[in-house]
Amino acid sequence: MQYVSKNPIKTLKSVPNVSDNVSTWLLIQWWFIRQELAWAYHFLPLWLKVLRNIENIVREEMDAIWAHELLMPALCRKESWDKTDRWDNVDVLFKLDGHGNTKYALSPTHEESVTPLIKEFVQSYKDLDFWVYQIQDKFRNEARAKSWILRWREFWMKDLYSFHKTEESMQEYYEMVAQAYKKIFDRLWIWDITKVATADGWAFTDKYSHEFQTLLPIWEDIICFDESWYCANLEVAEGQSDDKNSDEAELKMEKIDAPDVRTIDAMVEFFGKPNWQMIKTVVYKKSDWTFFGISVRWDLEVNELKVWRILWRDFEQASEEDLINLGTARGYVSPIKEDNYDITFYWDNSLKTVKNFIWWGKQDGVDRININLGDMDIKEFGDFTEAKEWFMSPNGEKLRFEKASEVWNIFRLYTKFSDAFGLSYTDEKGKNNEVLMWCYGIWISRVMWVIAEAMMDENGLVWPENIAPYTHYIMVIWDNLEKAEQLARDLEKKGARVLIDDRDKKVWFGQKARDADLLGIPYRIVVSPKTLEANSYELKARNSQETELISF
Amino acid sequence: MQYVSKNPIKTLKSVPNVSDNVSTWLLIQWWFIRQELAWAYHFLPLWLKVLRNIENIVREEMDAIWAHELLMPALCRKESWDKTDRWDNVDVLFKLDGHGNTKYALSPTHEESVTPLIKEFVQSYKDLDFWVYQIQDKFRNEARAKSWILRWREFWMKDLYSFHKTEESMQEYYEMVAQAYKKIFDRLWIWDITKVATADGWAFTDKYSHEFQTLLPIWEDIICFDESWYCANLEVAEGQSDDKNSDEAELKMEKIDAPDVRTIDAMVEFFGKPNWQMIKTVVYKKSDWTFFGISVRWDLEVNELKVWRILWRDFEQASEEDLINLGTARGYVSPIKEDNYDITFYWDNSLKTVKNFIWWGKQDGVDRININLGDMDIKEFGDFTEAKEWFMSPNGEKLRFEKASEVWNIFRLYTKFSDAFGLSYTDEKGKNNEVLMWCYGIWISRVMWVIAEAMMDENGLVWPENIAPYTHYIMVIWDNLEKAEQLARDLEKKGARVLIDDRDKKVWFGQKARDADLLGIPYRIVVSPKTLEANSYELKARNSQETELISF
Repeated sequence: MQYVSKNPIKTLKSVPNVSDNVSTWLLIQWWFIRQELAWAYHFLPLWLKVLRNIENIVREEMDAIWAHELLMPALCRKESWDKTDRWDNVDVLFKLDGHGNTKYALSPTHEESVTPLIKEFVQSYKDLDFWVYQIQDKFRNEARAKSWILRWREFWMKDLYSFHKTEESMQEYYEMVAQAYKKIFDRLWIWDITKVATADGWAFTDKYSHEFQTLLPIWEDIICFDESWYCANLEVAEGQSDDKNSDEAELKMEKIDAPDVRTIDAMVEFFGKPNWQMIKTVVYKKSDWTFFGISVRWDLEVNELKVWRILWRDFEQASEEDLINLGTARGYVSPIKEDNYDITFYWDNSLKTVKNFIWWGKQDGVDRININLGDMDIKEFGDFTEAKEWFMSPNGEKLRFEKASEVWNIFRLYTKFSDAFGLSYTDEKGKNNEVLMWCYGIWISRVMWVIAEAMMDENGLVWPENIAPYTHYIMVIWDNLEKAEQLARDLEKKGARVLIDDRDKKVWFGQKARDADLLGIPYRIVVSPKTLEANSYELKARNSQETELISF
Repeated sequence: MQYVSKNPIKTLKSVPNVSDNVSTWLLIQWWFIRQELAWAYHFLPLWLKVLRNIENIVREEMDAIWAHELLMPALCRKESWDKTDRWDNVDVLFKLDGHGNTKYALSPTHEESVTPLIKEFVQSYKDLDFWVYQIQDKFRNEARAKSWILRWREFWMKDLYSFHKTEESMQEYYEMVAQAYKKIFDRLWIWDITKVATADGWAFTDKYSHEFQTLLPIWEDIICFDESWYCANLEVAEGQSDDKNSDEAELKMEKIDAPDVRTIDAMVEFFGKPNWQMIKTVVYKKSDWTFFGISVRWDLEVNELKVWRILWRDFEQASEEDLINLGTARGYVSPIKEDNYDITFYWDNSLKTVKNFIWWGKQDGVDRININLGDMDIKEFGDFTEAKEWFMSPNGEKLRFEKASEVWNIFRLYTKFSDAFGLSYTDEKGKNNEVLMWCYGIWISRVMWVIAEAMMDENGLVWPENIAPYTHYIMVIWDNLEKAEQLARDLEKKGARVLIDDRDKKVWFGQKARDADLLGIPYRIVVSPKTLEANSYELKARNSQETELISF
């Protein structure tokens, strides 16, 4: 039988236009990936080798901290998702019909599987602390992708679930995992461009979660950090807004007739003052039908996630009708004492940076100027704005904004799942306590893409040696396959992973050399009549232009 | 922080009553498996190690025949399943709702994924022959399990898909894969008890498929084989029925009045003849509303799968109403010429082994005796019966029946999928030809269970060294953990995989020794004050009673 080639590489002559980024295009052309459906991909032979190499690095570092690997079914009982109240509330959950009235979840995450599983093995304090991990496929019924490669319908993930007796042991364990993660990302060559950002804790907790974000200009997450330790996802980033005129003397509040000045630009022009000297207030309604307002400088925005984190969770923006019932209208709500609305006002810290505010009038067209804190009805100050690039960090340093991709995250699950499944343990005194849980993820299929994108250069892909599909690429010129195979065997004995390009002799040297670069394999070897004359082969590193003759 | 134990083993105090077989019970108790839902299992740390070891053996042997590994999404486009007409016709297919009207298949098998994928890379004869394989999770919406461990809703499978130019290269490749499979099952210790059986080709082809069946008394498949080469699944097993009285002289057909003799037992008693001398006929209706009958000896059964394979596929049993319209009734249809029904009769070969048949009468109660072939309306003879344990094999040898479990199968897909997806190639003369396909499966999660069940003894599990979760189990007696850890490191340098039982010192020696046996790890080592006095450790193989003192 004639084998086509032992070479596992196939290429596409023309690549479908599915992405605007070059690394993706290369991966598609070069036998790495193919799309099965939007956001679900075939992992072709070269890509799969990269996946396995990354998996092994992750596995080694997880095993080193005595985590035990297991594999959970993708299918999960509906009853477990009912218990945590997530069957109807996780909109990306794929639901499956079994026989009769049976339904299953196709797991996007495995808290509903792992918690009842571990409950079977944990009774007393002697069984804790304890942790297990999985490296496997997960599923999300995404409506649309945030970015072509960011969210998938089917993706490969490492999740470590840890079970603890106390907050202290949770924290200690966190430090240990963080060290292991640092080692992993070091071995993947991306630690230097990866930042640990605080982020929202999602539905699990009102505390922050931690995301590891790799800086990459094509991604959509924005992280904000300074030169010291501060780093946060924009969604929760804190910062000090710039001081405007806080050293001005406070003037006495006055009324001004300006019935026709009814846009912000007109205000700026009419009063000859900058927009930051205006105040805006957004009014919210709580589920008990009381109202509160968040007031910020006009040049800033209310960050509702911060409101949600700092104040309470059950609110929505007040409707036009609500505002009319309160005796005002959208855009005309003032936090000034004398207006006396039935609204509780919270002020953003940024308002402390301005003196002598301007407020535009109620429906009567009478504006007020020189408003200061003493004139106001203020319940409390807080950090309610979205951070801006001109803010200072909490350390008082310049805040940098960069695009980045989340490669892993840590969720403090606390007792959310232990509560739902009754996972508890008996302590030394015979008292029953809830088990505390954390979840440590790594988005492995996303990490792969991040590395491909972050490492590539103008000549093609560049794989870190640790995870490259092959470490050496041997180009055979003319009939020297036997010699090349011998060399491959010798190199493999030393731990190399060798690919021999045994394509048709008619493929031109320059083409093969270009292909070697495009593929991104760390070392290129040429075995040709010329090198053989010197009883040697030619070696070139992917990230160098130098070649070297090495004797057999 | 106090770690509970570096030892990854957890055990259940009491095991739920989910199975009647001992290996399963042990696997559940010993941190190998847990059920998530009926026929979907957690692979706990020890089981996962076995899985990975088996996977690696399979991978090595697949790579050795230049198969390239890839990973396909579990999700597949509905459109592809429509093209092959399987969306509505595969009853175990899980179907998923995406957004809008999008639907996905959760793949039970990947022909619908791999065929369009490979089509992108195959144009000319130069691109063939070619083959790829996958080792991954698959899903089947089973209504009920044939056996507790036989069919799962979610299971781990290796599938190799091969793409060929000609029937000859397909056959050559088959021989190569068969050799690789033999190596795999040799390395898994079950080749000696595994038989290659022909079986039905399922919906793919009217040719046989090949199943590799491991002999195991608790399984439900039955295979039939002789001492030479013959082996088949009972569903398609051929055989020669025993000769009864074929050397008797043929007598002349006669009518006998016997209006009250209307059961087989009554017939046997009334005529004083054995039941094999009676004929029974099952009548079928084809989709064109013509009728045919299959006649067999009374002591044998019609095998409808054989009818389906030999004659045609579109038939069902005739209804009572059909039979009345034909002028007869169930149990009274005769293939005798003079009765002259509008039915085409096929006779099973077994009827050649009998002379002077008896037929019970039509509704008139008149039976006939001494019926012979000349009296009959026979279209054709064929092998239409289910094989029996007293048959001879096609080689003329005794046919043995044994229970077995299918561990892999080979399906000749031929052009079923190439047709559906237009997968073709241009040959040397520029002519377009369909690509031929085969599929080679290994049910990895079932193989694991088969090995556990086949190898275990009265003291517990017995793992082949190649796939054991650990090769060595070190029991530490008193405070000699450090010495044990040093020994473990030394053994691991030599390729051993070591588990240290560092459980509470209070666990009794006998308990630990019994546990070591139950777990089935190939070698047990004891490090105790006594062995240390002689500067040595004690070694015992799992399948031996001998212990040996070995110096450090």
